[in-house]
Amino acid sequence: MVHKKRKRRIAQKAGLPPGTLVATAGPGHPEHAAPLAVAITRILYDAAGYDERGVASIEEALPAPDEKRTLWINVDGVHDIAILERVGKQFGLHPLLLEDIAHTEQRPKLESYGDHLFMDLNVFHLHEGSDEIHGEQISLVLGANWLLSFNEGPQPWERPLRERLKADKAHCRQHGPDYLAYTIIDAVVDGYYLVLERLGDRIEDLEEELMASPTPQTLHAVYLLKREVIHLRKSVWPLRELIGGLQRERDLVRESTGIYLRDLYDHAVQVLDTVETYRDILAGMLDIYLSSVSNKMNEVMKVLTVIATIFIPLTFVAGIYGMNFEFMPELKWRYGYLFFWGIIVAVGLGMLAYFRRKKWF
Amino acid sequence: MVHKKRKRRIAQKAGLPPGTLVATAGPGHPEHAAPLAVAITRILYDAAGYDERGVASIEEALPAPDEKRTLWINVDGVHDIAILERVGKQFGLHPLLLEDIAHTEQRPKLESYGDHLFMDLNVFHLHEGSDEIHGEQISLVLGANWLLSFNEGPQPWERPLRERLKADKAHCRQHGPDYLAYTIIDAVVDGYYLVLERLGDRIEDLEEELMASPTPQTLHAVYLLKREVIHLRKSVWPLRELIGGLQRERDLVRESTGIYLRDLYDHAVQVLDTVETYRDILAGMLDIYLSSVSNKMNEVMKVLTVIATIFIPLTFVAGIYGMNFEFMPELKWRYGYLFFWGIIVAVGLGMLAYFRRKKWF
Amino acid sequence: MVHKKRKRRIAQKAGLPPGTLVATAGPGHPEHAAPLAVAITRILYDAAGYDERGVASIEEALPAPDEKRTLWINVDGVHDIAILERVGKQFGLHPLLLEDIAHTEQRPKLESYGDHLFMDLNVFHLHEGSDEIHGEQISLVLGANWLLSFNEGPQPWERPLRERLKADKAHCRQHGPDYLAYTIIDAVVDGYYLVLERLGDRIEDLEEELMASPTPQTLHAVYLLKREVIHLRKSVWPLRELIGGLQRERDLVRESTGIYLRDLYDHAVQVLDTVETYRDILAGMLDIYLSSVSNKMNEVMKVLTVIATIFIPLTFVAGIYGMNFEFMPELKWRYGYLFFWGIIVAVGLGMLAYFRRKKWF
Amino acid sequence: MVHKKRKRRIAQKAGLPPGTLVATAGPGHPEHAAPLAVAITRILYDAAGYDERGVASIEEALPAPDEKRTLWINVDGVHDIAILERVGKQFGLHPLLLEDIAHTEQRPKLESYGDHLFMDLNVFHLHEGSDEIHGEQISLVLGANWLLSFNEGPQPWERPLRERLKADKAHCRQHGPDYLAYTIIDAVVDGYYLVLERLGDRIEDLEEELMASPTPQTLHAVYLLKREVIHLRKSVWPLRELIGGLQRERDLVRESTGIYLRDLYDHAVQVLDTVETYRDILAGMLDIYLSSVSNKMNEVMKVLTVIATIFIPLTFVAGIYGMNFEFMPELKWRYGYLFFWGIIVAVGLGMLAYFRRKKWF
Amino acid sequence: MVHKKRKRRIAQKAGLPPGTLVATAGPGHPEHAAPLAVAITRILYDAAGYDERGVASIEEALPAPDEKRTLWINVDGVHDIAILERVGKQFGLHPLLLEDIAHTEQRPKLESYGDHLFMDLNVFHLHEGSDEIHGEQISLVLGANWLLSFNEGPQPWERPLRERLKADKAHCRQHGPDYLAYTIIDAVVDGYYLVLERLGDRIEDLEEELMASPTPQTLHAVYLLKREVIHLRKSVWPLRELIGGLQRERDLVRESTGIYLRDLYDHAVQVLDTVETYRDILAGMLDIYLSSVSNKMNEVMKVLTVIATIFIPLTFVAGIYGMNFEFMPELKWRYGYLFFWGIIVAVGLGMLAYFRRKKWF
Repeated sequence: MVHKKRKRRIAQKAGLPPGTLVATAGPGHPEHAAPLAVAITRILYDAAGYDERGVASIEEALPAPDEKRTLWINVDGVHDIAILERVGKQFGLHPLLLEDIAHTEQRPKLESYGDHLFMDLNVFHLHEGSDEIHGEQISLVLGANWLLSFNEGPQPWERPLRERLKADKAHCRQHGPDYLAYTIIDAVVDGYYLVLERLGDRIEDLEEELMASPTPQTLHAVYLLKREVIHLRKSVWPLRELIGGLQRERDLVRESTGIYLRDLYDHAVQVLDTVETYRDILAGMLDIYLSSVSNKMNEVMKVLTVIATIFIPLTFVAGIYGMNFEFMPELKWRYGYLFFWGIIVAVGLGMLAYFRRKKWF
Repeated sequence: MVHKKRKRRIAQKAGLPPGTLVATAGPGHPEHAAPLAVAITRILYDAAGYDERGVASIEEALPAPDEKRTLWINVDGVHDIAILERVGKQFGLHPLLLEDIAHTEQRPKLESYGDHLFMDLNVFHLHEGSDEIHGEQISLVLGANWLLSFNEGPQPWERPLRERLKADKAHCRQHGPDYLAYTIIDAVVDGYYLVLERLGDRIEDLEEELMASPTPQTLHAVYLLKREVIHLRKSVWPLRELIGGLQRERDLVRESTGIYLRDLYDHAVQVLDTVETYRDILAGMLDIYLSSVSNKMNEVMKVLTVIATIFIPLTFVAGIYGMNFEFMPELKWRYGYLFFWGIIVAVGLGMLAYFRRKKWF
Repeated sequence: MVHKKRKRRIAQKAGLPPGTLVATAGPGHPEHAAPLAVAITRILYDAAGYDERGVASIEEALPAPDEKRTLWINVDGVHDIAILERVGKQFGLHPLLLEDIAHTEQRPKLESYGDHLFMDLNVFHLHEGSDEIHGEQISLVLGANWLLSFNEGPQPWERPLRERLKADKAHCRQHGPDYLAYTIIDAVVDGYYLVLERLGDRIEDLEEELMASPTPQTLHAVYLLKREVIHLRKSVWPLRELIGGLQRERDLVRESTGIYLRDLYDHAVQVLDTVETYRDILAGMLDIYLSSVSNKMNEVMKVLTVIATIFIPLTFVAGIYGMNFEFMPELKWRYGYLFFWGIIVAVGLGMLAYFRRKKWF
Repeated sequence: MVHKKRKRRIAQKAGLPPGTLVATAGPGHPEHAAPLAVAITRILYDAAGYDERGVASIEEALPAPDEKRTLWINVDGVHDIAILERVGKQFGLHPLLLEDIAHTEQRPKLESYGDHLFMDLNVFHLHEGSDEIHGEQISLVLGANWLLSFNEGPQPWERPLRERLKADKAHCRQHGPDYLAYTIIDAVVDGYYLVLERLGDRIEDLEEELMASPTPQTLHAVYLLKREVIHLRKSVWPLRELIGGLQRERDLVRESTGIYLRDLYDHAVQVLDTVETYRDILAGMLDIYLSSVSNKMNEVMKVLTVIATIFIPLTFVAGIYGMNFEFMPELKWRYGYLFFWGIIVAVGLGMLAYFRRKKWF
Repeated sequence: MVHKKRKRRIAQKAGLPPGTLVATAGPGHPEHAAPLAVAITRILYDAAGYDERGVASIEEALPAPDEKRTLWINVDGVHDIAILERVGKQFGLHPLLLEDIAHTEQRPKLESYGDHLFMDLNVFHLHEGSDEIHGEQISLVLGANWLLSFNEGPQPWERPLRERLKADKAHCRQHGPDYLAYTIIDAVVDGYYLVLERLGDRIEDLEEELMASPTPQTLHAVYLLKREVIHLRKSVWPLRELIGGLQRERDLVRESTGIYLRDLYDHAVQVLDTVETYRDILAGMLDIYLSSVSNKMNEVMKVLTVIATIFIPLTFVAGIYGMNFEFMPELKWRYGYLFFWGIIVAVGLGMLAYFRRKKWF
């Protein structure tokens, strides 16, 4: 459960001075059994060319001072505090910004630091073969002609994005780092669609199960799904605000990118709409479950009532003729036994007719 | 279920660069068994005249550069990417705008591109003989003296609208393409009224069923109806915003059209009111259902209790006189059997009086 | 049900060009069996005098062009399209405005047309001897020194209002048509109080019924009342906005009338408060009903359980001594039968004590 | 129930011209058995002196025209229309303002009439020995150097306030009538705390009752308490707005008083917070009640089921050996009866073990 | 329960003039058995040096008039009215501000008094070994180069904060008292994380209990937890506003501190998010509980129904052959008894098959 982890991490930090770097992910963290090496990639590009290089240290990644090309540094792995501090020093980043990068349980947000913008994003991955949704944090720092991106680990969108950048001289490389930031956020939002699709499938499965044969397990699944939707919603709301805010950052975000951001904003609203719809649907499913349980109990009660109300009076009649009174004229009748059966059949059929009229079976 | 489709389509696109045209409707799409030809109609009109022509390609539809008349190009079928791209090139449309036209699962929205406005609308159709509501997308691009409209397929309002345009020289043809856009949105909103009327009828039917003889099927129908209302609501909210925004677009929308839009806005609010009312009513119906099930179970329980509490003690009494004790004086009494019946009738009538006083039957 | 009617009427109009006049009330309409004559009254007044006249046609009602007195034309009956069109022509009213007058199922609204204001109001009447609330529409058009009022039929406030106007030279006739419009809206809001009083009485009756002896009919009544409150609320919200908007219309509404409108606004807020309170109370009543049904079932169950758990074991004991084993020593005992009754009484009293301690009866 | 009274009073007025004075409290009103004399007190004060006088008529209360001291006229009893009209004449009050004073069922509000402010407040009293909350209205009119206060009857805060004013030359008498108005509103808000404290105690009592032994009476009490909280809330919301608005009335409210109003505003927010919390808690209590009823029914069912499922099969076995078949070998067995008891004990113990494992008892 | 205490304290004060100092904590208060001494600490610091001193009276704590260093006076214990009054006199604090410090049941708030800011905060502590959350109030007064802090008792963050201040010449001591205020609020917010972590653990425990074996005690725990969350929420909402307001106080809060406050604001939003999520989850748990109770009752009913519907008819059959009719041919049959067993086994197995098909066991 992502949500509990978040709380715990920040609680660890309670008492330390603000701006203290404490890694909440990475080696030494119980979640990652083996330490993960930090991978730094440096890309320089403009309409004319594209230069990609894996570097060992952040200092290697720095371009010449008179570099005109757009610089993109991508860091996979935020658990190495030393690297973050060196990045901070090179690009003049505020300690609180670095702290936000290192603490991977942040709420999505956009913050302006004058000549650069800081963005925190939550990305969600689906584990193959399981229904668990795994959340990671991506941090972006956008400067005038550079972009820094920090991921908890390698992201699925990294490779396709680089290849598009390499290939698409006419379009992608024409734009600056703001467009690059847009494409990354776009990939993140696309990831939400995949998660929503999976959730939607599970909701439909549960719906069918609910209608056909609900069990307490179905309800439990609805409950867990509802929690995941609540959790997802908590990430999407601020994401929408982030994109809206980015559109208004006219200094670092060019007009041409603004149109793309507007489109992205619509996508975020659509994701939110879907999340809210799922919430409504899941809330409705609980009611369906409860009424289905009531119905089943009703059915059980009817069976009991039909059987008991037919046979209890009949047993009473049989009990009468099992009595040992000396004077019981019926017992001596020639057709006493047949007479008994007549009563039994009449009462039984009468009862059945009554229940049939009541539509009990 | 429209809502699931939407999610799935956009998920297909995840990973592609923004602005990539991927048709989500039309031939090759599993929903349309046979490919549907794209029909392009070009209309030129002013107060003086009206000229309508079906054209084979978008280039044919383009008027002379010095054309003063209002141009309306209507495209039925958005699955042919090539046509959209040629339209985009001719009218200088942004790739994202074309992408929104091609992806037919958009949220209604209004976007300004400087010298033209883009509008996405959801229109709902009722299938004859079924309760299913089918959603389609209509996209409008409004320029200074031209209007482009893109539909997933032929729309019921197309023919009457053209005929009115042809006939009504005094009114419709006096106004520009903004008024034409208004009439199309008006037709869309009128479509909502038809859908709401159908939903209202079904709600009334379900209400009567609930009061008379609710079954789990009734509840299921309420649940499905509720989902449709949730879905409809998701379209009407942004539609209202769209019309409100259109009123403020003073460059491309004339003052005279503004009054009509204000009226249309009121209609959209009324639709929304009705949708919200339906939601409230449907939510209340679930409670009625649950309490009706409780009532029924109560009734079943009462029958069981009345029968059981009368006959169980009587059976006990009969059991006593079926015992084989050697010394049981009542068995030898002359009127022992009558005495037994006296007890039985007294206990039985006492019980009945008790239940009658409790108003159990 | 007013709410369904509204939807249906507008659906009728779907497909017609905007501004087409279609009467939704009056002769030919199924609701009115016999055609109702349209009654036009023309009143001219100022501080100096008062002149009231019933006129046959709208043209007769028009004053001399240099008329300085305030003109009030009241039209009872909006089903005669021709009259509306002639009024529209004389006073320069927009076709959409006339359409709103003719369609009597509008949402309350205020619209400015430059030199005149248009207002749509819903008024509610109580039918004597029935619980049904009947809604009608009143439309007002306020000009610089004239007021037009259109009602579906004669209104109860018409006569007292005219007499006050005739009598109260010092106050009412000093003010212009804006004050006249205020007095009409005030009469409408007073009508809401009467409706709320009736609803409040019914809520109190239902409350007592719920506490004393709830039946499914009580619940049905709560449900229907809830629907009426939902419907009423839909009219009061926009009415409040209308009055608020009127206060800001400084061109046609004088300062002196503004104070009266502020007071009226408070009344509308109070009506809304009461409607919301009723909604809360009705929602709470459903819960009371459900818990009352649960309590009753609990009581039924207790009776069944007490009787069954006492007599089922006793019957078993009686069954034992009805067995025909050859060797059953108790049967031969001299006081076997008394011994049996001893067991029965002990078990029975023990059970009773147990249930008494459990507070089951 | 205050809330019903309010509605009824205003409904009485429906049809009268606006500004008509109709007393809704006082003599002749069914609530007050005996007519209550109107008590008028006139106080003139400044830092130098304090002069208090009970006066018989409002004209006596008027100060000399060149009076510099602050004037406070307190009127206990608003049912004497003549007095209100004379006050209105002397201080130039609008008829609507007087109407609001006379109608004691108003919503709290603040209205500016240029050179004076009008305030309506609801004050709540607790009746000793009963749980009923009784609401009264206080109206304040604040001028440049005078304050009028109108109460339905004598208020508990009157005497302490006057004595403080008399004694506290340094502080209270330094300030003008705006500070005096503040102290009165402060006393009103303090009254809310007392009411909330009582409600809080009752909520705690009900909580304990719910946990220990809930009865339908408990639920009824929760329901009534909820209604009172809904009613209280309706008064506190506008009170908060009133105080907020007063802070912005910079003409008649001095800067020095502003700080006190800010503090008072916080108190009103705190009252509102508590009211909202009570609402949440009461809503939660209903759920607890329902689940407690369910639990009890569950317990009853378990007892029935345990007894019935043990003894019904045993009775069947006893029934078998009570049959009269000629050939039933067990009946002849020497230890047949013991064998029977063996079966009975085995089945009975098996059942008990089963239920114990199910944790049914 | 903190919430009740608050109400009671303020109610005590009802009737006293505003600004009257009444201690709501400290000696004489039932909560503190033994009086607690008030501890005053005075700290003077700048980048150059740090001087800390415990002082006996507030007058000792005052610096020389030409003091340039930042002054921090921390007072642990707010029950000594005399000390507060002397502080107020020395720093020119308004009586209402002092009143807010002394009344420890305030809502968090920020108030500007021109040259100084007043802040009220709620801090929460967890008692070791118990689940109770204990709330205390911290008040801060921020001047141009001084900060006063008032706590109900010694706070856990005091010592680490002083040591950091002493050690961290480069960073903490560079900033003014606004940064100091920030670090204190940061410590308070960190305290919320600890409380949330504990609540989160308890929620998870309850969740497991609910799924495994819910009892009425579980529900009671959910109810109490929900109340604590409601209470916590009431403190966090105004805290968020407080931090937001502090960011806008540009006179006393330096630009450099603004960035830290923005970060703190994000933390407060995150706390709020978590509180809201807990509320949603706890609300969902009640539904789970109710449905779990329903399920259990269903299960009980099934056992009863299976046993009763199998054995009641069989008992009837046994009853038949226990009758004493003279003419009952079956009794004389050679294999009558076997025939009886045949019927019994057939009926019993048929019933079992039926219930198995119904999935009742």
